[in-house]
Amino acid sequence: MFEETLTIGQLQQQLESYLQKDAFSGFPEVLQESTSHIMQMKGKRIRPVMLLTACQAFGGDISRAMGPASAMEVYHNFSLVHDDIIDEADIRRGRPTVHKSFGLNKAILTGDAMLLHSFVLLKRGPDDKLSAMLKVFSKATTQVMEGEQYDVNFEDIPEVTEEEYMMMIEFKTSVLLAASLQIGAIIGNASPEDQQRIYDFGLNLGLAFQIKDDYLDAFGDEKSFGKKIGGDILMNKKTYLLITALKQADAETRKKIFDLFEVQDEDKKIAQMLEIFTMLGVNEITFAKMEALYRQSLEALNRLTLDKESKKMLFELAEMVYHRTH
Amino acid sequence: MFEETLTIGQLQQQLESYLQKDAFSGFPEVLQESTSHIMQMKGKRIRPVMLLTACQAFGGDISRAMGPASAMEVYHNFSLVHDDIIDEADIRRGRPTVHKSFGLNKAILTGDAMLLHSFVLLKRGPDDKLSAMLKVFSKATTQVMEGEQYDVNFEDIPEVTEEEYMMMIEFKTSVLLAASLQIGAIIGNASPEDQQRIYDFGLNLGLAFQIKDDYLDAFGDEKSFGKKIGGDILMNKKTYLLITALKQADAETRKKIFDLFEVQDEDKKIAQMLEIFTMLGVNEITFAKMEALYRQSLEALNRLTLDKESKKMLFELAEMVYHRTH
Repeated sequence: MFEETLTIGQLQQQLESYLQKDAFSGFPEVLQESTSHIMQMKGKRIRPVMLLTACQAFGGDISRAMGPASAMEVYHNFSLVHDDIIDEADIRRGRPTVHKSFGLNKAILTGDAMLLHSFVLLKRGPDDKLSAMLKVFSKATTQVMEGEQYDVNFEDIPEVTEEEYMMMIEFKTSVLLAASLQIGAIIGNASPEDQQRIYDFGLNLGLAFQIKDDYLDAFGDEKSFGKKIGGDILMNKKTYLLITALKQADAETRKKIFDLFEVQDEDKKIAQMLEIFTMLGVNEITFAKMEALYRQSLEALNRLTLDKESKKMLFELAEMVYHRTH
Repeated sequence: MFEETLTIGQLQQQLESYLQKDAFSGFPEVLQESTSHIMQMKGKRIRPVMLLTACQAFGGDISRAMGPASAMEVYHNFSLVHDDIIDEADIRRGRPTVHKSFGLNKAILTGDAMLLHSFVLLKRGPDDKLSAMLKVFSKATTQVMEGEQYDVNFEDIPEVTEEEYMMMIEFKTSVLLAASLQIGAIIGNASPEDQQRIYDFGLNLGLAFQIKDDYLDAFGDEKSFGKKIGGDILMNKKTYLLITALKQADAETRKKIFDLFEVQDEDKKIAQMLEIFTMLGVNEITFAKMEALYRQSLEALNRLTLDKESKKMLFELAEMVYHRTH
């Protein structure tokens, strides 16, 4: 039997069509509008496309993977709805957030229903894989919530260690990428060893991505980064840069950094913090860290027992994530 | 092999011990305290005990049902945490609610993690029953959210039909009781017919319970009801009583009822609404309705292909729910 391999673009299209037509059958009608509001802020659908790509790479039937792939996207969007409440964010991708448009109560219920629906979608995968998929999905999504709570807690403590920070971003961002890939591999009947490798590929890719996000906020090109430089600095956010700076600094410079937290003049605050970062070599250390993580990610990818073409498609995805401009 | 049948009290004890020792292993540590806060407001654990009783009645291994039983309780408690936010309730069972004690953000995340954990607990049931349990659980919990949203919507519309009201309470209250019983029956290897019967038993029991709750708010004995009479009347809540009154009333009396919505004097408002209810025979109609539903519930129970002893235990549970005093 000859089966054509779909490109990433084609997988994105199939997924989009499934999300439009099938994914929300059985979903509460009273919550459809508020759910569409967030689901239509498209983005790259990176998690479900990763799942489908992994499934296809191992020779799995991608038509059986559409439910689980959508589960990852719906779960991710649920977390955005509730995160936006917690962060008191009014705008996402240029549109009002769900709680801004529909009120707090409806935003809570919309998120709840989406979280629940992600399990309904996961169940649409192959029945003989249900238990394995559910195990990976529950673990990852529990960790995402734990990561979110760490992130909230970090705001109230003066200093965070690098280890604490790495664990937070692993839980909050990376495990869902890793789990998406592993679930695709499960549907494709991958060996436990390959499941672990593809999980590690996703985990390190997610870490590299997150640290690059911190890096670009301070050292990015404003035009291609798409937002104003220094937003994290203004919010005294505990990024990899700040943690590294505090680690590198002597007592006097540490005091300067903590004093800068209180400075009101925005331009002055950003400029002086960037000077300290540069003086301490924070940009080189951070760049080296994210590049090392990305290499680790690609090494795990390379260890997969897959043909060249399949590896190339996964590499293409990694490049999309790591070298995104916005 | 001789196996002793456990009483309802013994099942409650075993469940409580499982909830204390085992149920929250793997649960995010940062959210343990806020979760314990709500889980320790014990109550009767009616849903998990129903699941265990149904499982035992069909000869199932209740030690394999402890995870799914806890799933029902954790799901129920998740819904209380988020409902209390939505209802702006400060007190539950004499203690501050989760959002009151831990803040809005932590209450949202705590609820989310509990909802997610209910699936983790369900998965602890027998693997060969996972797909069937998940189907029943997802459907019921989706309906609960739909019912909750209907309930919120009802506040903003002037009048609700009896059909709309019955659907709301079915979704918001009954389906979770019904699903608890069905999942217990599934673990006990009950036939599809018996699964349907035990589901109907729980569904009608829940409806009878909910209408009785409305009834006691107006016509209950203040001492045994445990709260002040007329709370629903003061809030202009669209109860079965109010809906029946508006249905029975002529144009003049309907106007009187709508005028009463605006009355500020609490004692006067309650007294006059009760007079109208009595004049229209709302108490008899409501009493007859809840008794009819309870009988339907017991008829479904009676049709189960179970021995006398097992039916008696399920009947005992029904009496506990329907004839509760608080």
